[in-house]
Amino acid sequence: MKRLPKIILSVFLLLPVTLLAQVKTKPSFKIVPLGVLGGVDESNLSAYMLAPVGSDKYICLDAGTIHYGLQKAVANKVFKSAAEQVLKHNIKGYFISHAHLDHLAGMVINSPEDTVKNVYGLASTLETLKTHYFTWESWANFADDGGAPQLKKYHYKVLTPADQQPIENTDMMVTAFPLAHSNLISTAFLVKSNEDYVLYLGDTGADAIEKSQNLSKLWEAVGPLVKLGKLKASMIEVSFPNEQPDKSLFGHLTPKLLMGELGQLQKITGAPIKGLNIVVTHLKPPRKNILKIKQQLKVGNTLGVRLTYPEQGKALQF
Amino acid sequence: MKRLPKIILSVFLLLPVTLLAQVKTKPSFKIVPLGVLGGVDESNLSAYMLAPVGSDKYICLDAGTIHYGLQKAVANKVFKSAAEQVLKHNIKGYFISHAHLDHLAGMVINSPEDTVKNVYGLASTLETLKTHYFTWESWANFADDGGAPQLKKYHYKVLTPADQQPIENTDMMVTAFPLAHSNLISTAFLVKSNEDYVLYLGDTGADAIEKSQNLSKLWEAVGPLVKLGKLKASMIEVSFPNEQPDKSLFGHLTPKLLMGELGQLQKITGAPIKGLNIVVTHLKPPRKNILKIKQQLKVGNTLGVRLTYPEQGKALQF
Repeated sequence: MKRLPKIILSVFLLLPVTLLAQVKTKPSFKIVPLGVLGGVDESNLSAYMLAPVGSDKYICLDAGTIHYGLQKAVANKVFKSAAEQVLKHNIKGYFISHAHLDHLAGMVINSPEDTVKNVYGLASTLETLKTHYFTWESWANFADDGGAPQLKKYHYKVLTPADQQPIENTDMMVTAFPLAHSNLISTAFLVKSNEDYVLYLGDTGADAIEKSQNLSKLWEAVGPLVKLGKLKASMIEVSFPNEQPDKSLFGHLTPKLLMGELGQLQKITGAPIKGLNIVVTHLKPPRKNILKIKQQLKVGNTLGVRLTYPEQGKALQF
Repeated sequence: MKRLPKIILSVFLLLPVTLLAQVKTKPSFKIVPLGVLGGVDESNLSAYMLAPVGSDKYICLDAGTIHYGLQKAVANKVFKSAAEQVLKHNIKGYFISHAHLDHLAGMVINSPEDTVKNVYGLASTLETLKTHYFTWESWANFADDGGAPQLKKYHYKVLTPADQQPIENTDMMVTAFPLAHSNLISTAFLVKSNEDYVLYLGDTGADAIEKSQNLSKLWEAVGPLVKLGKLKASMIEVSFPNEQPDKSLFGHLTPKLLMGELGQLQKITGAPIKGLNIVVTHLKPPRKNILKIKQQLKVGNTLGVRLTYPEQGKALQF
């Protein structure tokens, strides 16, 4: 009995520190990458499930590979149910950044086994889905618009740029911003849960190369969130190493171009972005290029952002 | 020295038998399945490389999954070079049976890394490739027809039904036959090397259900080859178990429907087709359905055909 007061004292002294640490690091979002590469491997193309921590109501940001990624995630015990069940019950909607096949093939291939849900995107992206994929020539029309008969499983939900709206069947909100991706309009999705945000960018080139102001406008929109520490992570593509000639970028970023754009973000934010979480997506094989991209990002990271390389089927928290 | 004559005698006695056995079983074709399933798993969708034995000049029959299948085949030592090299140098042309995404996604996804080659198909299939896939909306136009600019890597080669023609850069010939696949025209490719043949059928329904005579016409065309023992193998789809209702077949076969059609082939051939090689393709997950299909084919095989289930990345010879 003699030593008890000391122990109690110790517990009380430790408690505030522990709580503070928890508050500081408590994550707001979980991301389950279903596919992470920028090409050629059909088993691992851009698709990222996103949900608030504590929720099992995910959205899927792009949908290049679904089934194979879900199988990997299930094998890694990220989900307790089978891949087929996660597809049906845990993905509450798809957000397609642009209509290139490597960003939506998994959704189309899996549509016969899917449940009723929304497919969100800018008008031009959904138009291509309607006229090129769910058409009866390329695939059965599982949507509720376009070629007859309409199987009415998917509902196209057109997003208006910069207009925040709720994501049905989830507790999240979304705002879409246009991006310049060579001849196509691509999309950034800013997803909100409570007071925190994750930003996902589909394929995009740098403003200078694309002769665009889309990224600078996006940085203006998210700069205040960065300053307040509310932007928990940004998912951005880097497709090629620095050696790729400008004329062969096809609307993509290199390590140097990404760091240039993040410099713009810091300038607009008006404060250091050191420690900001940057999830680097869409690295294009071959492997030697991927290793080069990682090395060049490491060397070029004078801003001190926190770089993460997502792996298929392995959950991340931010 | 005493026993030598006996040994020599034995060798000479055995030689003709061995030679005969070799002549009898010497295969004419090799098939490398790059993907074998009829759905949902993006890493394993219909694609079969085919070449004469002794040649490294393959064609690819459908192209649902390319890269992941090549990786598996390379891991299995089917090829000595890397997947990227096999894609570029050993696939001399694609034969697309119809334009559903699960039969061509791999070709589109891998096109940036591919070399100049032909894409063969019936006019309607190539038209959909031109207007729905290689369009600049869904993907860059790597073909030499359709939306500008044309990157001119792939040349569309329209096949006329029943008209045999040489396959460029190979020693094989091909004849296309139309098949009925719900709302689409699908295709059977009859491939000839020397005096031997392999028949590949894309997705197809049964004549009775599709209100078609396409399969009966195909059996009439190949019946004489079956009778002469020149048809080394037929690759045919079975997508659903027998329990699938007719209205939900969507232009596919069940074990019972396949055996019914093979019965027609036997009737037209005018001789037993016992021992004919049937490679069963396009089985649709889930796994329990696949097991059921195999069981139902086993039980229903009163014709005595030789059923083979292809596996991704494992070479077959016929």
